[in-house]
Amino acid sequence: MSAAQGLKYIGTRPVRPDGLEKVTGRANFGADHALPGMLFGKVVRSPHAHARIVSIDTSAAEAMPGVLAVITAADFPDRRQMSWRRKGFNDNLLASDKVLYHGHAVAAVAATSNQAAEAAAAAVVVNYEVLDAVTDALAAMAPDAPVLHDDLFTEGLAETPDKPSNLVKKQVISKGDVEAAFAKADVIVERTFTTPMVHQGYIEPHACVGNFNEDGQATVWCPTQGHFGVRSMTAMAMGMDEGDIRVIASEIGGGFGGKTTIYLEPLALKLSQKSGRPVKMVMTREDVFRATGPASGTVNTAKIGCKRDGTIVAMYAKLIYEAGAYPGSPLGAGAMCMFAPYDVADVLIEGYEVVVNRPRVAAYRAPGAPQSMFAGECVLDELAEKLGMDPIDFRLKNAAKKGTHAAYGPTFGAIGLTDCLNAAKAHPNYKRPLGDAEGRGVAVGFWFNGGNQSSAEVHIADTGMVKIVEGSPDIGGSRASMALMAAETLGVPYERIRIRVADTDSTGYCATTGGSRTTFATGMAVIRACEDVIVQLKSRAALTWGIDEEQVEWSEGEAHPAPGVNVDAEPLSLAEIARNSARTGGPISGRAALNAQGPGPAFSVNMADVHVDRETGRATVNSFTAIQDAGKAIHPDYVEGQMQGGAVQGIGWALNEEYIYDADGVLENPGFLDYRVPVASDLPMIDTEIIEVANPTHPYGVRGCGETPIVAPLAAVGNAVSHAIGIRMTELPLSPPRVLEAIDNGGNGGA
Amino acid sequence: MSAAQGLKYIGTRPVRPDGLEKVTGRANFGADHALPGMLFGKVVRSPHAHARIVSIDTSAAEAMPGVLAVITAADFPDRRQMSWRRKGFNDNLLASDKVLYHGHAVAAVAATSNQAAEAAAAAVVVNYEVLDAVTDALAAMAPDAPVLHDDLFTEGLAETPDKPSNLVKKQVISKGDVEAAFAKADVIVERTFTTPMVHQGYIEPHACVGNFNEDGQATVWCPTQGHFGVRSMTAMAMGMDEGDIRVIASEIGGGFGGKTTIYLEPLALKLSQKSGRPVKMVMTREDVFRATGPASGTVNTAKIGCKRDGTIVAMYAKLIYEAGAYPGSPLGAGAMCMFAPYDVADVLIEGYEVVVNRPRVAAYRAPGAPQSMFAGECVLDELAEKLGMDPIDFRLKNAAKKGTHAAYGPTFGAIGLTDCLNAAKAHPNYKRPLGDAEGRGVAVGFWFNGGNQSSAEVHIADTGMVKIVEGSPDIGGSRASMALMAAETLGVPYERIRIRVADTDSTGYCATTGGSRTTFATGMAVIRACEDVIVQLKSRAALTWGIDEEQVEWSEGEAHPAPGVNVDAEPLSLAEIARNSARTGGPISGRAALNAQGPGPAFSVNMADVHVDRETGRATVNSFTAIQDAGKAIHPDYVEGQMQGGAVQGIGWALNEEYIYDADGVLENPGFLDYRVPVASDLPMIDTEIIEVANPTHPYGVRGCGETPIVAPLAAVGNAVSHAIGIRMTELPLSPPRVLEAIDNGGNGGA
Repeated sequence: MSAAQGLKYIGTRPVRPDGLEKVTGRANFGADHALPGMLFGKVVRSPHAHARIVSIDTSAAEAMPGVLAVITAADFPDRRQMSWRRKGFNDNLLASDKVLYHGHAVAAVAATSNQAAEAAAAAVVVNYEVLDAVTDALAAMAPDAPVLHDDLFTEGLAETPDKPSNLVKKQVISKGDVEAAFAKADVIVERTFTTPMVHQGYIEPHACVGNFNEDGQATVWCPTQGHFGVRSMTAMAMGMDEGDIRVIASEIGGGFGGKTTIYLEPLALKLSQKSGRPVKMVMTREDVFRATGPASGTVNTAKIGCKRDGTIVAMYAKLIYEAGAYPGSPLGAGAMCMFAPYDVADVLIEGYEVVVNRPRVAAYRAPGAPQSMFAGECVLDELAEKLGMDPIDFRLKNAAKKGTHAAYGPTFGAIGLTDCLNAAKAHPNYKRPLGDAEGRGVAVGFWFNGGNQSSAEVHIADTGMVKIVEGSPDIGGSRASMALMAAETLGVPYERIRIRVADTDSTGYCATTGGSRTTFATGMAVIRACEDVIVQLKSRAALTWGIDEEQVEWSEGEAHPAPGVNVDAEPLSLAEIARNSARTGGPISGRAALNAQGPGPAFSVNMADVHVDRETGRATVNSFTAIQDAGKAIHPDYVEGQMQGGAVQGIGWALNEEYIYDADGVLENPGFLDYRVPVASDLPMIDTEIIEVANPTHPYGVRGCGETPIVAPLAAVGNAVSHAIGIRMTELPLSPPRVLEAIDNGGNGGA
Repeated sequence: MSAAQGLKYIGTRPVRPDGLEKVTGRANFGADHALPGMLFGKVVRSPHAHARIVSIDTSAAEAMPGVLAVITAADFPDRRQMSWRRKGFNDNLLASDKVLYHGHAVAAVAATSNQAAEAAAAAVVVNYEVLDAVTDALAAMAPDAPVLHDDLFTEGLAETPDKPSNLVKKQVISKGDVEAAFAKADVIVERTFTTPMVHQGYIEPHACVGNFNEDGQATVWCPTQGHFGVRSMTAMAMGMDEGDIRVIASEIGGGFGGKTTIYLEPLALKLSQKSGRPVKMVMTREDVFRATGPASGTVNTAKIGCKRDGTIVAMYAKLIYEAGAYPGSPLGAGAMCMFAPYDVADVLIEGYEVVVNRPRVAAYRAPGAPQSMFAGECVLDELAEKLGMDPIDFRLKNAAKKGTHAAYGPTFGAIGLTDCLNAAKAHPNYKRPLGDAEGRGVAVGFWFNGGNQSSAEVHIADTGMVKIVEGSPDIGGSRASMALMAAETLGVPYERIRIRVADTDSTGYCATTGGSRTTFATGMAVIRACEDVIVQLKSRAALTWGIDEEQVEWSEGEAHPAPGVNVDAEPLSLAEIARNSARTGGPISGRAALNAQGPGPAFSVNMADVHVDRETGRATVNSFTAIQDAGKAIHPDYVEGQMQGGAVQGIGWALNEEYIYDADGVLENPGFLDYRVPVASDLPMIDTEIIEVANPTHPYGVRGCGETPIVAPLAAVGNAVSHAIGIRMTELPLSPPRVLEAIDNGGNGGA
């Protein structure tokens, strides 16, 4: 933690740069952009969950007043020669041969008003051959299940499959000999858990404006977690060179992983290309639920064996992840995270990915990990119970630490799991007496965190204002954390720093904001760009003083002659050097671009006290505590905000949220009235405690902190409910009907 | 000219990056921007040319439906303690105590529609005490003239003035002993010339959107030649730190110097601040003529003496420049340029600046030079006539060359005046037989050119596309010239380069596009930023090949092992290195910021053949030839375009354009029907010849080329008309009534 010593700005809690703009409503989000002559686009969506497209007749729509363009898959590059991966990506944007879920896009229109566009969309005639639908993984794996893709076979299975299958992937993580290890166990618990498909629930629907220029270049405005990613994906869909597309990220009204991919952008651009006008598209809430990427529903089995003393000897899992309509689930990450918190020699995780007639899944905070760790942490809880051990002590006994070789590959450096567990044990909330019908649940969360490529530029205005330019959309306060790191590095007050997220043509490449990489990787680019500026500041001071650059030191925001340098010079502040910069060589700009290595893994411990009303089955969270190792909390408010937000989303996932499909594969609850996310009045204050075990690869010790918070709440709440009612619950969400059914069945409801 | 050898991209004529967007109408100009909740602002303007503001009653306007804000000077920082310079700048934006010209802004309103704003503007009641107006310089210098500013005295006069004066400045350029030199002259011509106040005539009126955020930070969208300048000026007017204002430059529909200052931006921001909403303001054409900055009207006397053999021995001038309502005319530049083309030992130029009840002047291409050089080049023409010398030979005999010490200061390096004069003499148009009633005029033009601060960043996309970011608005094809210089430096095809003019927060500082500095100075920043990229490309290649960076060379867009380096390596192109960049350290970005020194002065020679209809007095230009030293023409189309555009504007100035005020100081011709600019059907093809005498301080030899073209046409046309009718014309414009009057008076019309 030496890097965190003596910090002046890092660790403080100033107002975020985009704060007032957002609370006053001045900030512009995806649907706020307008261009002269702009048209409005609408998507025609499938009413069927599974059907072959026989024909599409757009003539009536095209003939309607105000309609300037109608597009179908035929307007895009021919998919018949594409790899299945690329075809699937394109087909999800606009179906070519088959529709695979209720709400799947089949055509789009652009017209001079929203009303005209809606009317035209309704006038597109699609002739379908309706097929049987299958919307859950176990049914989709049955031998006689309807098959979604004629050309997809199981990847990763040893045996060569002889016919196309919905089981599209098998993935294995293995360490040691798990079968032999189980033989040595004194106690074994094995259980199967199911988690529903859930949505990220971002408030802002997807929206964009596309403008396709006659020179073949295009501009897209949209809310996204990664405009460089939008650029690549849109180029792929359009068959363009990505350098010909400029993407401008608006403010983003929530993403949580769901805005790392695209839905509307190539449609808007193609409509713009055909109409010769800019085109705006905005999803409805129903569109968002029906046709954007939620998190995988899963059926996961965990089997863990341990000695009487609590030493875990073997861990096994079988994971089944729904991918939605096209391959690409977060199965891999789920498998990586599941047992990573534990120092166990023999581990085997077998994972299966299954396509079903639901929307293609997308990332959702720590993608894949909440589902798998729900299973693992519930079984650990049951084991602790069987052993008569405190669940924290049980985990402490087996906790991964520096030097532990994780089954998914790495050997951990400095990590904070033990510190988190100790903090949990010492926390007042862990000593809080439980009330009647209350249960307490504990669980550990984990995310490995991302690094990846980032760039930043820093420009010094001649008033001494520091202007930072970077390409990572701010989804959780990253402007504030960048500005704080720049303030610390340069020695300039936070208030003198301005930061912009520039478009894809105006800053260096930054990978998508996701995987908890931004404060770590883009932050490192900002720090390096500031260091590039400091080199120049020292050089300008040297010029002013008539000494060598090596004879100047930078500290506390000022250039000083190095000790022993014989020059009569007062220190020069950044502002003073900036004011004089025209006379010492011109403006001062710095830049850095890097591929950040070594993001520190982040562990958390969550504790939940849940009351269950035995009359209604309603579970109420009375206390929730999130403890997490952030490495170094640059802006503690936003670390705590991440921890609280992740907890709330995890609580929703545990208690209420789920996609409900009818037998025909029609989504029955595509709106916030029927898809129940927790609101403030449903929740207690989420108590937080930040642990800081510095990540040695980052100058200030940062670990990503955005993903881990959502991982543990499912099991923490699940364990609490199980304890409250004395019945081991295994199926999420633990909604009133399900809990009541378990109570009524006297213990057979879940298990 | 060695720098220009072996160039592959520089000197070619590709389509400009912003070409198709502009011809299809997709490009967005100042009035095209819109924000949610935006209001519309209107300015209340004075109907009087000179009046004291007794009171302003905004209550009726404020009470009108849809009106959210009304502002007057009282809403801005108090001007009573300001320097006269700052007070004048602010008062020109919104008058505090006095109005000084017809159209002077006194208040502004913001409302939910244009109509509501117009009605509210009409409802603002201003109580004036009307004063006598004086709209021309000579009248304003009379002892009993109405005085515009109670607190302005003559600057630069030896005697201490005892009362405020409209004569606000005297400026002298002197070399040698001009009085003694005139005594040695065999022939002396002295004559006084007048030039009218003229407008730049840009097609796009001023417009902006201002958004003042509750955190005290603000954003401005506007068409401008320099958004960093808009930032400074708006901050000064608002009393803000300039770092708190972000300015986004739209495309610009013509500026020619007139968009180097501001009129609406602080008004829009103040209205936004008061209303809590974004505010859009767009001038009408009448607003533009009445209240934006035209070029100074002048009364200039030139006296030149020479020997019988044509050797000039003495040059004297007395210049009187109208500043409009506030000090700040381009008198200084006019004086610098006037005699600079000639190598004469004894020179004296006395300049006077006078305030009058007209709009405050602004820059107009080569500000000040066309007016002074009109006088000088007409007197030279008359001298050549008197000596019986060819006017080109006469100038060749006296032409400045490398080593000439100019009266305004510098000793010239390599310059192209002699080359231009020789080219003119050899040009077929100079041998064209003159028709009946046709006259030929020759004149030399000059502009010293600007350097100043510029920055640029270069980002390499992983497809190998090169993304340039800079802060110089593109007013004449500079995106194309930057892209060509980048292509040449990197060895990458022009088509693989994209260039963006970024906002003031998103790129390094660039001074305003003006003074013909941009291709020179920002171009140099782009070249240096590309060189920063090349260092990294070589380093990546070295890493790939496992050799030292010093062992890699960059040529023809590829990294090569240096001769003698023993490595088995195929050359690596920029695209190949970019594709692999994630594995060699991350994205590649370069940056440069500099204060460019040594812009090469640019000389031109213009020739005009003009026919005069003796019945109507109408002058028709039958042939016009512009020859100019561009140092190196990066994109010859745009150099020729500058030469042609400047010629046309100069022809308009010479023949038709003028501000016409009535006796009360009311502008009578504030529209393009009555203010007559030349249109295509009025003009011949403007023939061009680019001379290239490389500027040794620029890597590719560039000299600025945007200003010089407008300097010589006034005298070239004036001399041609004088020859056509056999009468020396001294008063512009040479409009039909004026020429007819001269003809009717038999030679006394002009002289």
